[in-house]
Amino acid sequence: MNIQTSLDAAAGSLSLPQPYLLFLGDTTQRGYAKTAFGLRDWAPEKCVGEYALPGATVSAGLEQFTPVEAKARGARSLLIGVANSGGVIPESWMPALFEALDAGLDIVSGMHMRLADMPELAARAERLGRQLIDVRHPPSGLKVGTGRKRSGKRLLTVGTDCALGKKYTALAIARAFAARDVDADFRATGQTGIMIAGGGVPMDAVVSDFEAGAAEAVSPDATPDHWDVIEGQGSLFHPAYAAVSLGLLHGSQPDVIVVCHEPGREEVMGTPGYRLPGIEETIDLNLRLGARTNPAIRCAGVSFNTAHMDAEAAAALMETESARLGIPVADPIRGGVAFDRLVDSCLA
Amino acid sequence: MNIQTSLDAAAGSLSLPQPYLLFLGDTTQRGYAKTAFGLRDWAPEKCVGEYALPGATVSAGLEQFTPVEAKARGARSLLIGVANSGGVIPESWMPALFEALDAGLDIVSGMHMRLADMPELAARAERLGRQLIDVRHPPSGLKVGTGRKRSGKRLLTVGTDCALGKKYTALAIARAFAARDVDADFRATGQTGIMIAGGGVPMDAVVSDFEAGAAEAVSPDATPDHWDVIEGQGSLFHPAYAAVSLGLLHGSQPDVIVVCHEPGREEVMGTPGYRLPGIEETIDLNLRLGARTNPAIRCAGVSFNTAHMDAEAAAALMETESARLGIPVADPIRGGVAFDRLVDSCLA
Repeated sequence: MNIQTSLDAAAGSLSLPQPYLLFLGDTTQRGYAKTAFGLRDWAPEKCVGEYALPGATVSAGLEQFTPVEAKARGARSLLIGVANSGGVIPESWMPALFEALDAGLDIVSGMHMRLADMPELAARAERLGRQLIDVRHPPSGLKVGTGRKRSGKRLLTVGTDCALGKKYTALAIARAFAARDVDADFRATGQTGIMIAGGGVPMDAVVSDFEAGAAEAVSPDATPDHWDVIEGQGSLFHPAYAAVSLGLLHGSQPDVIVVCHEPGREEVMGTPGYRLPGIEETIDLNLRLGARTNPAIRCAGVSFNTAHMDAEAAAALMETESARLGIPVADPIRGGVAFDRLVDSCLA
Repeated sequence: MNIQTSLDAAAGSLSLPQPYLLFLGDTTQRGYAKTAFGLRDWAPEKCVGEYALPGATVSAGLEQFTPVEAKARGARSLLIGVANSGGVIPESWMPALFEALDAGLDIVSGMHMRLADMPELAARAERLGRQLIDVRHPPSGLKVGTGRKRSGKRLLTVGTDCALGKKYTALAIARAFAARDVDADFRATGQTGIMIAGGGVPMDAVVSDFEAGAAEAVSPDATPDHWDVIEGQGSLFHPAYAAVSLGLLHGSQPDVIVVCHEPGREEVMGTPGYRLPGIEETIDLNLRLGARTNPAIRCAGVSFNTAHMDAEAAAALMETESARLGIPVADPIRGGVAFDRLVDSCLA
């Protein structure tokens, strides 16, 4: 899988300085270190090591280096791999951030608070010629969509709701494609995905007029046999976020969609009273709307997030659902034959 | 028609200082004065008069006042009612803008270039305690949508494409409602509409994550018999702008849609090769997607922009189309019995 993307070549998309030194701060709660774990799991080759402050109890299990040591081993940036409850960069991290800049590393952050809005950090970075990169903020230069058909093949993960596995499914499919020697890039559309890929556009932060255009920039023209495997966002059925999903669908022009779902979830996240759509309904609406920019769009299968189920129950449910829907249903994290069938169907 | 909206009460929406003195600059081409003409046609009670520089040959036909005279007659702001080819505020206008600030007027602009980005103007406004208001830029404080059903009734104009009469149709319907003593507000979602209404949100400039939430803010809770008549944007079929249209549709929760179309237009504006959708297809997709946040949504009729046709041909076409579709079809600018029937259908 090639997740060192060629996004630097795509107008308006972000390109990050890799490999990273993962910064864990003084974190004592594993839940706050999701970004670091995501990078370790999906892009270990882009992680030189980790760096934590005294007092930290959470580790991503990588070798520990100071910024100077990491720089000597090829690191190009310090990546803030932890969040905290306020989403704010605490004073206690500042000496480490200065240390990174002094060592010759850029800094990459996915927090709401902008690095560039911290005056002392901004001044030091400017003086040293270092970059402060806030991946939650879209790059400049985004353009309005054109609808022009691009070369190469595209897969987009879509969902019955938010936060149920669209990023993990896209990453797993891109990895499976690579294992079959299919030329493929994972294309990131959210902050953690962008850090894993090394580039991309945070679609939910893009001005609406440029939403489809941003999606076009995320997956540029490619060779005919090349696949872009694009991380989906939100859901066409979400009363708050459907605009993001439709702009991404139109701009991505997917040849193939994979519908992501969490069995048992019945209500749309954050909007009480909104029933989750059915899988057939989700397939149908995505195909109808997606056909506007790619009339050949098809659904290759369904990805279930069965983390909350035992293996036997999950396997039985996926088999039943696959028979009912007539397409492969698999949990990419569990893998196995079911997932192989889903990948077959994507490439069919 | 109440187009002095109550938007000041709606979190995150803009409220403009009215009435206006319309500024015509040194314009010699009528095409550049569309904003001034729109205000004269749709909100004459909000225009104290007009102010032009020597050399201007275009007039909106209002009484001419200097900023000092206009202020004495109750004007609260100078509104830039003209554009020019570059979309930039020329040096030759600066003395007049200073004069307005000195006279006690705020300045309202719909140009791409921000007033606040002109250092001398910004400094003078700050010193005098005046506002510089750029309506193309969304207000701060926008929130994520909730999908919560709001009280009162809502009508949204939707389209087969961009730029074919959604704003004019909404204004004409709001005016017709008022003529029948129906309590109604025109709700603006684009720059010219915002200047006419005195408030609103430029939906195409809102960050995608907040698109539906911004639409919710544009038409807040109201009394049960009150109608918000909401200006539509873009088209669900436009490969660049559908995200804007879907966020607006979801957030507006319309009870009624009116589909706007320009007979004879066959290709989507700005995107060669994209066939314009049919009217039935446009109705069907808007109802299907709109039902997500308002299951009672219905289509009351169709608005034709027949400016390019002669009266007889336009009338014949509208009659044929109305019979074919089984709903009223009218050109609101031509008015007449056909438009009365469309208004009846909206209120039915």
